[in-house]
Amino acid sequence: MNSEEIMKLLQEVKEDKVSVAEGLAKIKEGTYHDLGYAKIDTNRESRVGYPEVIYCAGKTVEQVKGIVEFMLTKNNNILGTRATYEMFEAVKEISDAAEYNASARTITIKNKEINKPDSYIAIVTAGTSDMPVAEEAAVTAELLGNRVEKVIDVGVAGIHRLFDKLEVIRGAKVVIVVAGMEGALVSVVGGLIDKPVIAVPTSVGYGTSFGGITALLAMLNSCASGVSVVNIDNGFGAGYLASMINKL
Amino acid sequence: MNSEEIMKLLQEVKEDKVSVAEGLAKIKEGTYHDLGYAKIDTNRESRVGYPEVIYCAGKTVEQVKGIVEFMLTKNNNILGTRATYEMFEAVKEISDAAEYNASARTITIKNKEINKPDSYIAIVTAGTSDMPVAEEAAVTAELLGNRVEKVIDVGVAGIHRLFDKLEVIRGAKVVIVVAGMEGALVSVVGGLIDKPVIAVPTSVGYGTSFGGITALLAMLNSCASGVSVVNIDNGFGAGYLASMINKL
Amino acid sequence: MNSEEIMKLLQEVKEDKVSVAEGLAKIKEGTYHDLGYAKIDTNRESRVGYPEVIYCAGKTVEQVKGIVEFMLTKNNNILGTRATYEMFEAVKEISDAAEYNASARTITIKNKEINKPDSYIAIVTAGTSDMPVAEEAAVTAELLGNRVEKVIDVGVAGIHRLFDKLEVIRGAKVVIVVAGMEGALVSVVGGLIDKPVIAVPTSVGYGTSFGGITALLAMLNSCASGVSVVNIDNGFGAGYLASMINKL
Amino acid sequence: MNSEEIMKLLQEVKEDKVSVAEGLAKIKEGTYHDLGYAKIDTNRESRVGYPEVIYCAGKTVEQVKGIVEFMLTKNNNILGTRATYEMFEAVKEISDAAEYNASARTITIKNKEINKPDSYIAIVTAGTSDMPVAEEAAVTAELLGNRVEKVIDVGVAGIHRLFDKLEVIRGAKVVIVVAGMEGALVSVVGGLIDKPVIAVPTSVGYGTSFGGITALLAMLNSCASGVSVVNIDNGFGAGYLASMINKL
Amino acid sequence: MNSEEIMKLLQEVKEDKVSVAEGLAKIKEGTYHDLGYAKIDTNRESRVGYPEVIYCAGKTVEQVKGIVEFMLTKNNNILGTRATYEMFEAVKEISDAAEYNASARTITIKNKEINKPDSYIAIVTAGTSDMPVAEEAAVTAELLGNRVEKVIDVGVAGIHRLFDKLEVIRGAKVVIVVAGMEGALVSVVGGLIDKPVIAVPTSVGYGTSFGGITALLAMLNSCASGVSVVNIDNGFGAGYLASMINKL
Amino acid sequence: MNSEEIMKLLQEVKEDKVSVAEGLAKIKEGTYHDLGYAKIDTNRESRVGYPEVIYCAGKTVEQVKGIVEFMLTKNNNILGTRATYEMFEAVKEISDAAEYNASARTITIKNKEINKPDSYIAIVTAGTSDMPVAEEAAVTAELLGNRVEKVIDVGVAGIHRLFDKLEVIRGAKVVIVVAGMEGALVSVVGGLIDKPVIAVPTSVGYGTSFGGITALLAMLNSCASGVSVVNIDNGFGAGYLASMINKL
Amino acid sequence: MNSEEIMKLLQEVKEDKVSVAEGLAKIKEGTYHDLGYAKIDTNRESRVGYPEVIYCAGKTVEQVKGIVEFMLTKNNNILGTRATYEMFEAVKEISDAAEYNASARTITIKNKEINKPDSYIAIVTAGTSDMPVAEEAAVTAELLGNRVEKVIDVGVAGIHRLFDKLEVIRGAKVVIVVAGMEGALVSVVGGLIDKPVIAVPTSVGYGTSFGGITALLAMLNSCASGVSVVNIDNGFGAGYLASMINKL
Amino acid sequence: MNSEEIMKLLQEVKEDKVSVAEGLAKIKEGTYHDLGYAKIDTNRESRVGYPEVIYCAGKTVEQVKGIVEFMLTKNNNILGTRATYEMFEAVKEISDAAEYNASARTITIKNKEINKPDSYIAIVTAGTSDMPVAEEAAVTAELLGNRVEKVIDVGVAGIHRLFDKLEVIRGAKVVIVVAGMEGALVSVVGGLIDKPVIAVPTSVGYGTSFGGITALLAMLNSCASGVSVVNIDNGFGAGYLASMINKL
Repeated sequence: MNSEEIMKLLQEVKEDKVSVAEGLAKIKEGTYHDLGYAKIDTNRESRVGYPEVIYCAGKTVEQVKGIVEFMLTKNNNILGTRATYEMFEAVKEISDAAEYNASARTITIKNKEINKPDSYIAIVTAGTSDMPVAEEAAVTAELLGNRVEKVIDVGVAGIHRLFDKLEVIRGAKVVIVVAGMEGALVSVVGGLIDKPVIAVPTSVGYGTSFGGITALLAMLNSCASGVSVVNIDNGFGAGYLASMINKL
Repeated sequence: MNSEEIMKLLQEVKEDKVSVAEGLAKIKEGTYHDLGYAKIDTNRESRVGYPEVIYCAGKTVEQVKGIVEFMLTKNNNILGTRATYEMFEAVKEISDAAEYNASARTITIKNKEINKPDSYIAIVTAGTSDMPVAEEAAVTAELLGNRVEKVIDVGVAGIHRLFDKLEVIRGAKVVIVVAGMEGALVSVVGGLIDKPVIAVPTSVGYGTSFGGITALLAMLNSCASGVSVVNIDNGFGAGYLASMINKL
Repeated sequence: MNSEEIMKLLQEVKEDKVSVAEGLAKIKEGTYHDLGYAKIDTNRESRVGYPEVIYCAGKTVEQVKGIVEFMLTKNNNILGTRATYEMFEAVKEISDAAEYNASARTITIKNKEINKPDSYIAIVTAGTSDMPVAEEAAVTAELLGNRVEKVIDVGVAGIHRLFDKLEVIRGAKVVIVVAGMEGALVSVVGGLIDKPVIAVPTSVGYGTSFGGITALLAMLNSCASGVSVVNIDNGFGAGYLASMINKL
Repeated sequence: MNSEEIMKLLQEVKEDKVSVAEGLAKIKEGTYHDLGYAKIDTNRESRVGYPEVIYCAGKTVEQVKGIVEFMLTKNNNILGTRATYEMFEAVKEISDAAEYNASARTITIKNKEINKPDSYIAIVTAGTSDMPVAEEAAVTAELLGNRVEKVIDVGVAGIHRLFDKLEVIRGAKVVIVVAGMEGALVSVVGGLIDKPVIAVPTSVGYGTSFGGITALLAMLNSCASGVSVVNIDNGFGAGYLASMINKL
Repeated sequence: MNSEEIMKLLQEVKEDKVSVAEGLAKIKEGTYHDLGYAKIDTNRESRVGYPEVIYCAGKTVEQVKGIVEFMLTKNNNILGTRATYEMFEAVKEISDAAEYNASARTITIKNKEINKPDSYIAIVTAGTSDMPVAEEAAVTAELLGNRVEKVIDVGVAGIHRLFDKLEVIRGAKVVIVVAGMEGALVSVVGGLIDKPVIAVPTSVGYGTSFGGITALLAMLNSCASGVSVVNIDNGFGAGYLASMINKL
Repeated sequence: MNSEEIMKLLQEVKEDKVSVAEGLAKIKEGTYHDLGYAKIDTNRESRVGYPEVIYCAGKTVEQVKGIVEFMLTKNNNILGTRATYEMFEAVKEISDAAEYNASARTITIKNKEINKPDSYIAIVTAGTSDMPVAEEAAVTAELLGNRVEKVIDVGVAGIHRLFDKLEVIRGAKVVIVVAGMEGALVSVVGGLIDKPVIAVPTSVGYGTSFGGITALLAMLNSCASGVSVVNIDNGFGAGYLASMINKL
Repeated sequence: MNSEEIMKLLQEVKEDKVSVAEGLAKIKEGTYHDLGYAKIDTNRESRVGYPEVIYCAGKTVEQVKGIVEFMLTKNNNILGTRATYEMFEAVKEISDAAEYNASARTITIKNKEINKPDSYIAIVTAGTSDMPVAEEAAVTAELLGNRVEKVIDVGVAGIHRLFDKLEVIRGAKVVIVVAGMEGALVSVVGGLIDKPVIAVPTSVGYGTSFGGITALLAMLNSCASGVSVVNIDNGFGAGYLASMINKL
Repeated sequence: MNSEEIMKLLQEVKEDKVSVAEGLAKIKEGTYHDLGYAKIDTNRESRVGYPEVIYCAGKTVEQVKGIVEFMLTKNNNILGTRATYEMFEAVKEISDAAEYNASARTITIKNKEINKPDSYIAIVTAGTSDMPVAEEAAVTAELLGNRVEKVIDVGVAGIHRLFDKLEVIRGAKVVIVVAGMEGALVSVVGGLIDKPVIAVPTSVGYGTSFGGITALLAMLNSCASGVSVVNIDNGFGAGYLASMINKL
């Protein structure tokens, strides 16, 4: 509640258009719904621009189903990440529209169409093994109402593959680069384009790749400018942020 | 044994009320019971205020059962943490009163009622996935004779949920905050209340959450004062310490 | 602002006891003072029980002096931690009451006497080299209105020294244990008393002591219950938390 | 060189408008200038939108001066980061327009005015000690042609200070959050606004803050969406990326 | 494309031997084959001397099979590393020549004989448990056309075993040393011979061997000269590099 | 081969008592037996005092069996560590004397009695969960011909249990202390006795115990003198070294 | 106080040979001397066999001097480690016998001759740069009454230097091996002799030697048996333990 | 000494051409020179192909001078690395031919010309700040008798600079790539050439570059084949190994 809204409310209370009890209720307004095991943030869309997303890991099947059940009453598009197939089956029971992407491990329910901007998001991967993370980013960005172009397997060991796809990448408003191992693709792409690059380290690799830490560190230390980084394997976070930027 | 006790004993030996052999026995008094694979600390209650708790991890089912068997002879309340269901079944054979909390992974046997102080302990979690650790803290605190109020899923991504529950939290004598990921809830709560905050990092998260290390580090570096930290996922430790403070 | 306060304010606005503009001002109330480079939290005392403390590290001498200058207008006791002697000299220019503790690296200005509870805080150190951190804890606790008993150099390499002082330690309401190297003193003390133990790892040691990390880890993994931990060398945090607990 | 450009060049060669030797020269075109110790990337502006920035750390005073000397011939705005005062003095000898920001440790030479977009960048810091990093971000963003609003010292230990400034933050097109210690401010801000948040961990803190690693990890694990992270103390990187986004 | 090739092409375009469209196609030449999930680098052999190798980990069985299927059309020798037996079975369906080495976890298809140089590669292991990694190196080196001599289980705990095999090791053109635990064998071998030593740390060991990190660090810090290191368990990388050097 | 032995051999060659070929054979003497996958160190006993021990981890069942088969021909006592039950069954086929200790995971074959010194080795554990590691140490020490006294579950959380067993510990010639978690028992024991203490960190614990790293670090930083440390869970190494010292 | 001593004391109290007050005093006997900033452990010699050693790091010059002053009254040999020259000068004022070893950074005062056993301690270093740590070990061992043989600069890069000195090393009762970098010397020595090896990692090296961590890890993972490890650069600890073993 | 040499010696002893005493002396031949603080490895050249190099760090000025003094008697080329200017001045006193390279921190004395092979070593750096490490590699390689081509400041942020120099790099027999920050240049170069790449991570960078660890990890995980890695900032090691390979 900003100053203006507070003044307006106080004025209404003063003018008896709003009772004191109503004023209290409005100030402490029903901004979430309490399920006991979860407090669903129902005003997130007005506050941060998108409805709450369900991070399914660490929740029971029943909890996921219960949260979806409540959210269905709001008629929003619904996204569950890190979801198991078992969770999807439970959700499917209460919504025919539910879809499962096995590679991205997402549950999506599309209840309304969202207008897409003309610009698009490019999602670039270093290798084939990085695809599940790229997929999570793509599902997220598309559900939030964006056009996505994927450029798969253009890692620097064969850099001519990247150069061949440079026009697609340069045409995007924002670029997600997904890479494991040494993550060098981020720096190369960052050095070739004039758009924000969201780097997603993946846990692809072995030995001293340390489950993505090496790629993460390499990306944080990129000699190219215009690069920022999200958590390892965090395709969702990259897709969400890219959507935010694509809609600016 | 403090000075007073030693002087009293020496006086009794001098006055022949206590024989030399008895004096030795008293000094080397039967302060533990030896099961071969375990030495049960039978004077812990008088020394630190509570009976010994059984940390079940790394013990065999037989060892857990054997320890409980001996402790039942003392008529204390019994708490086993990190217990498997298989351990519980073995304990159930020797005590009908045994209960298992599958989320907290605890075995409890309540042999006597403990007087509860008027004040209460608040247990606050950032997300739904932090509930098992919160549950372990709650089971512990309740068995030790405390009233507990839980506030679930009020993480800072939707901070209005926290503000709505602030009165419950502020009313407690001591607050346990359970959080994974970046653990920011601890600092926000710590900055809003004037009571000790016991922070419990959880292993909830992925990638650079490093199984709770990130939350732990964040909590140790909290810019709020009045915060201290226990080991990752150590709900028991938090519940135990909170009980100590609640009973001061 | 809790529900009650909001209702009262709305009622007063309604009854014209408070104008709409005043209502706004009250809600956005002067809860901090803005110096440009710092926003001093002027309602912290009512919110968390103590006035704001100045963490001097990373601030310029001028900034520290400016913050103290403003705080002097509030007539509170003032504490600056991690302060250099140069900072003290600047503060001394504007307050004759300022004192510097070279070991603890604190600036204190005592403007009013605080009633001390009957109970006391014990501060125990493993070695002589841990004294500066213990000193910071002591200065903090004393300025906040507590009686402190120090037990210095009772590390486990000569554990009889600890046993000889056990009565002083057991008599406290809360105990701060300060130790570097392997930090074993915490577990030994924690196993012998029935009061909360606040463990402070220090950066005393070399090689694999890693500037206090080893002591920190050891303390987090203490086999004794009732122990919680603060950041390495964080004497202030321990003293502050101990004061909170001592005043419960 | 994209397909279109290559076709055009080949056509010109074919039509003898361009000789074979010229064609070669164009393809291998003078895209950098070689100083021996440095190859200045002279077509970076056309490629990534901004001229090259001089990272002064690890370079000698003579090298920095030599690079600036060459760049002055291009009439661009010049930015040197991590610069010492000694480097500035050397640069000052060859350019009267050179300015030094001691807090940000930047050398700037403004040779031309850049049109600023209507939107602005908000730079928010948790504490006073985070100001040098924020300053580097601000100098960078301003030199690249952006309006900047700073919100200093609104860390979560006194969260009302943040709420009071929320309108300024929400009004920005992109927000830089600069924080050390546990970096919780990032999650709180991220949960309250619907704009991209660029998180900059700082090396402010001690003990387990590990020179900014704790803040970095916390930010990477932020429970709020729309957050990405740059390297520790990398004010320049944040300012550069924010400028990119602000100009979309 | 080097200068000469570009000039030649431009000349041909100029002389109408090559059309503008063909020129474009040649410059953007078909240097890879796109399978959707993978872009196979078809000019790698001309560029780096060997055809692309399939890193099977993180790929689906179908993807591996599809890549092999395409590569079979090129009549090269084919190597798949980190392959499961299931992958092999799928490959076997499309190529009778496919062979699986269970210890090395490699799939090989030998389509043509490669001339072997007279010199050979020595592969030395510290223990029996290091054999799978040594095997991966051997399979790789042999498929690439090299003679290999293996010296197994000559770790420094019984250093006379090494001395007895010194002539075989000294006779090689390049030596691969495979060791886990403390990796001391690398330094001892490096101090005894005048040939390049490629050190491969293995994940053999427990506790503080940290899955090969200790061996890796020891090898990087070898007091012997002429030693370089590849990733943990990276037998393929060592075999590939050794082949490169053996063929110089 | 020391100077004396070389001179003697040369003298014998000179005097034709030994032929040149024999001299070579003697110098390159049959100091190991080569099984292809392993080179068994047959002169280890004369060199380091004990026959080679089989580290079974990472070896196949067949390899273990083959090594034992050869060693049986030498009539030594045989010890296999980190052995699976399956390995034991294979060994049992070729030696009825083989025994398996499931807790220690050892295979032992006792072919001859070894004279035991009068002095004994004390093995002390902090908890019940540390027993398997203690068991490995005990099996090793006993097979090598030593008397062992075990003191189980005397961790510092109930330090009176330790004091009660101090005489047994003080009576030993060398003491092995086995502890996980914070490993404080090592420092307490080290401070109370005048004999060498071999500290064995165990992987017992959770969260920041990091699989034994915390205990290891604590032990390396012990404030008590006379303490040295072996690898995490390395009961064998401790038993072996203790045997060496006990027999001095 | 063991059982026997307690019984004897109780008997004496009973027989009035000792008063109750005296009994108390004896039980709480004067086992340390309290200087305020330090509690000197005056019964350490009877308990662990040697007088207390002064770890000077982190102590003030005055504190070191004060501790020495008290210890001089006991007529023991005195050892101060990690001492500065300034500390030595202060000690020199109160004891002419004080000596300073600049390489080892030790202060020694030899007040009485100690009988040396016939056996000796070998101290072996990998390089010249490891000498200060070896020196600290030697000073310690010699002051405690041992003969020491040093073998300097026999690292494995030139392993024949080691073999040439093998007789000296094999002749010792216990061997200290001091090495930085990859610490391979420990495994080689351990594999060649039948005596306990105390490994001391040093901080010699750069880059990934990590101030001795690599050497430490390598030593903990030594494939040779009979090896144990002390803290990085802990020459004192090695010398002390070696003395203990040499005197068994 | 290989079999042939031993047989020959034994034959000579047998034939009285060599006395027994001489035989001993030959076998224990003067393979090093003992200076007390250092054992100079005088047969290293015959064993590993080059004379011993002096690693000056951690040695005193006198020790460096003493070692050079002895080596001058052998008439070899002399190389001292990590040398201070003070060390150089001391060496200059005994050898007019001594030269100091301040960037590489090397002392060189060229006593004889070495025949250079026709092939050359390319040394490539990512940035200007990597030059000192490249310089150390170049000095080493040149002193050992190699031609060197340097390609400076071709990091991937402006990848066209690299492509322009590709012919120089591809023409080399072996390539050293020196890079800090994220070290991506290694993978790009490795993917473009068919020669061995020796990667040298440098400590250039800040924050999460961790003094070169990030670059090191990135290089170890390079997706390009034919790459191996040496220690951070180890220009000497790279130059030495490159020389070995260049001379194959």
